[in-house]
Amino acid sequence: MTEIRTVAVVGAGTIGASWTALFLAHGLDVIAYDPSPEAEAKLRAFARRALPDVFRQASAPRDGQLGFSTSLEDAVSSADFVQENAPEREDVKTALIARIEAAAPSHAIIASSTTAFPHSIIAAGAKDPSRVIIAHPFNPPHLVPLVELVGTRPDAPAVLKAFEFYKGLGREPVILKREAIGHLANRLQAALMREALYCLEQGIADVEDIDRAVRYGPGLRWAFMGPFQTYHVAGGPGGIRHYFAHLGPSQVQRWNSLGRPDLDESLEQKAIAGVEAMLGQSTVEELEAERDRSLKAIIAALGSARM
Amino acid sequence: MTEIRTVAVVGAGTIGASWTALFLAHGLDVIAYDPSPEAEAKLRAFARRALPDVFRQASAPRDGQLGFSTSLEDAVSSADFVQENAPEREDVKTALIARIEAAAPSHAIIASSTTAFPHSIIAAGAKDPSRVIIAHPFNPPHLVPLVELVGTRPDAPAVLKAFEFYKGLGREPVILKREAIGHLANRLQAALMREALYCLEQGIADVEDIDRAVRYGPGLRWAFMGPFQTYHVAGGPGGIRHYFAHLGPSQVQRWNSLGRPDLDESLEQKAIAGVEAMLGQSTVEELEAERDRSLKAIIAALGSARM
Repeated sequence: MTEIRTVAVVGAGTIGASWTALFLAHGLDVIAYDPSPEAEAKLRAFARRALPDVFRQASAPRDGQLGFSTSLEDAVSSADFVQENAPEREDVKTALIARIEAAAPSHAIIASSTTAFPHSIIAAGAKDPSRVIIAHPFNPPHLVPLVELVGTRPDAPAVLKAFEFYKGLGREPVILKREAIGHLANRLQAALMREALYCLEQGIADVEDIDRAVRYGPGLRWAFMGPFQTYHVAGGPGGIRHYFAHLGPSQVQRWNSLGRPDLDESLEQKAIAGVEAMLGQSTVEELEAERDRSLKAIIAALGSARM
Repeated sequence: MTEIRTVAVVGAGTIGASWTALFLAHGLDVIAYDPSPEAEAKLRAFARRALPDVFRQASAPRDGQLGFSTSLEDAVSSADFVQENAPEREDVKTALIARIEAAAPSHAIIASSTTAFPHSIIAAGAKDPSRVIIAHPFNPPHLVPLVELVGTRPDAPAVLKAFEFYKGLGREPVILKREAIGHLANRLQAALMREALYCLEQGIADVEDIDRAVRYGPGLRWAFMGPFQTYHVAGGPGGIRHYFAHLGPSQVQRWNSLGRPDLDESLEQKAIAGVEAMLGQSTVEELEAERDRSLKAIIAALGSARM
């Protein structure tokens, strides 16, 4: 198995730049490709800024080197691993994956950051679909540890190698057993958001109170335990077995009362107005900076709480 | 408006004991009632242990005094505020609320911690339903700030007074505009858990990986921003307006792929086996202690990150 020393980052927007910072901080060399003329300067500025934020491996003796190419084929020609972050358009993605496959060394794994497409679409243009995987991060990937992996099979060599690769970067990879729309975490996010919009539509609460109900309530716990552990602890000494036996029926009753909102113009406007009322004059850029400060604080705090 | 100095805690189990610690730490006197013979000793031990964990008001000059009574009527007779935490049985709750109403001073607000019942059921036995409110906490209420409030109307005097009361205790009260099964946050939790069980049922991922996908991914963000702010930031510079315009259709497509699992014996067993595999030899008591350590660490970390 070839060691991964050089990563090609294809598409150097928000996600690509964050991946770049992560890779560099762990001593990997990165060659980035992006067709935009301003991309290189933006990428170098972002990587410099983000590098100190990455929780590093103790074993990385130095930051990696960052190269940039305006030729896709050049960028991937010496890569051991390719992280693709192009715009979420099916035709763009499939054509790009085919070009990467043709130009990259045969041992290189081709990983797509796609949110929107399942593996069968992403790999549709590849001669060898087993080389292509989905490695879907959460924004920003240099801070949020989850990476969802999907391949031709959960035990495909490319998937297993990618699992070890991301683990080595301090990430928390999860291998999906089969592909699904929205992969896994975005299905869970979509379920939460759908019910949030339903509660808004039904006049149970406004945007700000729905967000407060999450962040000051169950959201605080979700930062360190998922839904199964939450219900297990809610079951008391008998755990989730007791929960199902005694509270299962009330859970099913609650499920039956959940809704399917109609995402029409009126509901969208209500949500937009609520977000504007809640966030006042903050720009999204400011909110991103605040998000990153909070993420760093929580990750550092949980690191010590878990000891 | 009478100042709230004395709180009666009716039902001194897990939730009642945690409320008690919160009230005492903010200088309120508490008279607890519980019919169980061991309740008083357990309550005093818990309150002593939990008191240092409460993030206190600077203005509370001393801890409150803790009294205990085995008579409900005695316990509530001098209360300015009653926090009821009896078992979740409709007949028990409605009878108890009627007895509390008859014995408590006429100015006292009667707040039920109920998870399972909407306001119209909780207040069904009361002569004056507008005195009765739901004040639903998240476990443990001395650490998790959210308190969901429901009354006869969102602007009923008892609701508004309770809002100020809990705010003064460092809580984050949310007033529901109307009652709903599961109130608000448990509807959102139920939506997440339903999709988690669906992903388990469909073989997309196992229990441990579903929990990891939450805690290492979106869960880290939900500790400080709710779903609306999350989608706003995901929309980039154009915010949630841009999100709806460009990603709304893919969101609706994702919604259509979400599932309704059949919570039968087979799925329950799969979930139970998965939880047991994930949590190994940890007892629920140990997991609760770990939960509380993590909650304290996150709350402290966000306090400084938000400055």
